[in-house]
Amino acid sequence: MIIHIEGKKAYTPHSKRLVRLGIGFKKGLKTFLNPVEVLFLVLKYDARVEINGKPAGTTDVFEWCVNSIENFMQLYSVYEDLRSRGYRVKVLDGFLVCKYVVLPFCERLKTTISEISKRRFEKLVLAIVDEENDVTYYKVEEIDLRGEHFEEGFEVEGVLIGDRVFTDPTLHKRYFYGGLKGNSTILSLLECAYLVEIGWLNVKLKGKVLSLEEIKEIGRKHDPNFDRKLEVYRDLKRRGFVVKTGLKFGSDFRLYDGRDVHSRYLLTIADNRLFPMYEIARAVRLAQSVRKKTVFVFKEGDRNTYVLIERVKL
Amino acid sequence: MIIHIEGKKAYTPHSKRLVRLGIGFKKGLKTFLNPVEVLFLVLKYDARVEINGKPAGTTDVFEWCVNSIENFMQLYSVYEDLRSRGYRVKVLDGFLVCKYVVLPFCERLKTTISEISKRRFEKLVLAIVDEENDVTYYKVEEIDLRGEHFEEGFEVEGVLIGDRVFTDPTLHKRYFYGGLKGNSTILSLLECAYLVEIGWLNVKLKGKVLSLEEIKEIGRKHDPNFDRKLEVYRDLKRRGFVVKTGLKFGSDFRLYDGRDVHSRYLLTIADNRLFPMYEIARAVRLAQSVRKKTVFVFKEGDRNTYVLIERVKL
Repeated sequence: MIIHIEGKKAYTPHSKRLVRLGIGFKKGLKTFLNPVEVLFLVLKYDARVEINGKPAGTTDVFEWCVNSIENFMQLYSVYEDLRSRGYRVKVLDGFLVCKYVVLPFCERLKTTISEISKRRFEKLVLAIVDEENDVTYYKVEEIDLRGEHFEEGFEVEGVLIGDRVFTDPTLHKRYFYGGLKGNSTILSLLECAYLVEIGWLNVKLKGKVLSLEEIKEIGRKHDPNFDRKLEVYRDLKRRGFVVKTGLKFGSDFRLYDGRDVHSRYLLTIADNRLFPMYEIARAVRLAQSVRKKTVFVFKEGDRNTYVLIERVKL
Repeated sequence: MIIHIEGKKAYTPHSKRLVRLGIGFKKGLKTFLNPVEVLFLVLKYDARVEINGKPAGTTDVFEWCVNSIENFMQLYSVYEDLRSRGYRVKVLDGFLVCKYVVLPFCERLKTTISEISKRRFEKLVLAIVDEENDVTYYKVEEIDLRGEHFEEGFEVEGVLIGDRVFTDPTLHKRYFYGGLKGNSTILSLLECAYLVEIGWLNVKLKGKVLSLEEIKEIGRKHDPNFDRKLEVYRDLKRRGFVVKTGLKFGSDFRLYDGRDVHSRYLLTIADNRLFPMYEIARAVRLAQSVRKKTVFVFKEGDRNTYVLIERVKL
């Protein structure tokens, strides 16, 4: 097979073989090829190439490809990988379309979770390409997080000591708030603010009852993102979860759904933060190594949108 | 048992039981107690406490303890954990001394790796205490990294396309540089700079040979830390390793020692960077989940110091 490259265009005389492979698109007697398809035919089917009528070596072809479209190497790596898995793949405007709609990303690329989740195709799959051109696939799915842990109210007293609140052991024993030390539940400031907000807890500092605003003020001193964390925490409680810190796993919260003794989800507040793709890949890898799922949350208007990102095998 | 607290001091009448437990230090007829020991006796041995002659509740004791010494809760959590493992523990100037010298850290604390590794006691163990007062122990050890991968020189030509260098397949096939695509080895700019530096590679851009300085200049545009990375890369090659990117694992490099087909170490260039302890914990956890060891490197004068951090069970 011989491929002719002229300027930005690449074509080859029409052949049934290409139709069978699902490569290129026919126009008259020619089959026009995408740069990805050109390199694939060169590397896998030993196609010869002429650039403007002169025979070209592999390096010349690489050079033409890389200069023809942005992020060529990522696109090509995913294309080749999908082909090697037996899929007939079409290149469409930065996407690779087969049974799935695959969106290749360089692992160094930074984006927001909302940007990713906006591309709502059925069967959208992210393909993250690492520096060595290895490809890993991820499913992205908006989910309606629901647990089955619900609580009935009671009233307790607490004392603020340092950045912790010491209170009734029942809070931990019954609903897993904080941690138990001796006969006290020790709460974080976040848990404390939530419990004060719903009217279960009265907190004193040196004998004086603290208002919710005073507690938040202390919380903000320890964590500038305190208010947003409280907002998500509140939403997760409403959705029926036991919510604990996920710091150890590199996330904001780990969630127990009231069915399983192990936490099921690791949740990260993403909002408008730019994540490099390798950070997303790493979060999913870490979560899966401890049998948990990775969820990101961002704000759309007044609503929290939860996005599950999971590794998939194609 | 009754404990008397007066100002900053806590003591109890001398008893053989405390001697047997290895708690406190005797002075005359009194045994003086550290705040950590006070709380331990209250929570585990139901000791009663009087503060300035008045009976005190557990919350009062917590309050006195938290205000008596910095990072009390961390120190106490580690103390209690070590005691529960059967160690006789002494509190000494922020350290807990038993069979090991244990240094408790709050997981939010930020420090440099050189700061940690400077505390060169025999048997130093880091104890990282998370927000829920769970304790994990880590061994910190300076190591002389040595691999058994060595290379004999040859000369090849390459072409810079985008941020990659396309060159001879032998470089990958023989010494695992870069990745193979078709019949080309595709190198990163870092590998390229190293190979140009040692005189194995000539790289051309549009027909013109690039100098080492020109390549470094391009490298710096892609990665501001390019020069320091090259310095460490060079040192690792000298020490006998195949060096590949560790980005996927959240580190700078993964190292193959030439004995094992799997990479043994994940290496992070730490230098003067401040790491929160939970980030160190997470790096070790991630590495261990893929059976690798975590190494940090920092510069001492002209020398690279390599520090292995590993989880240990006490």
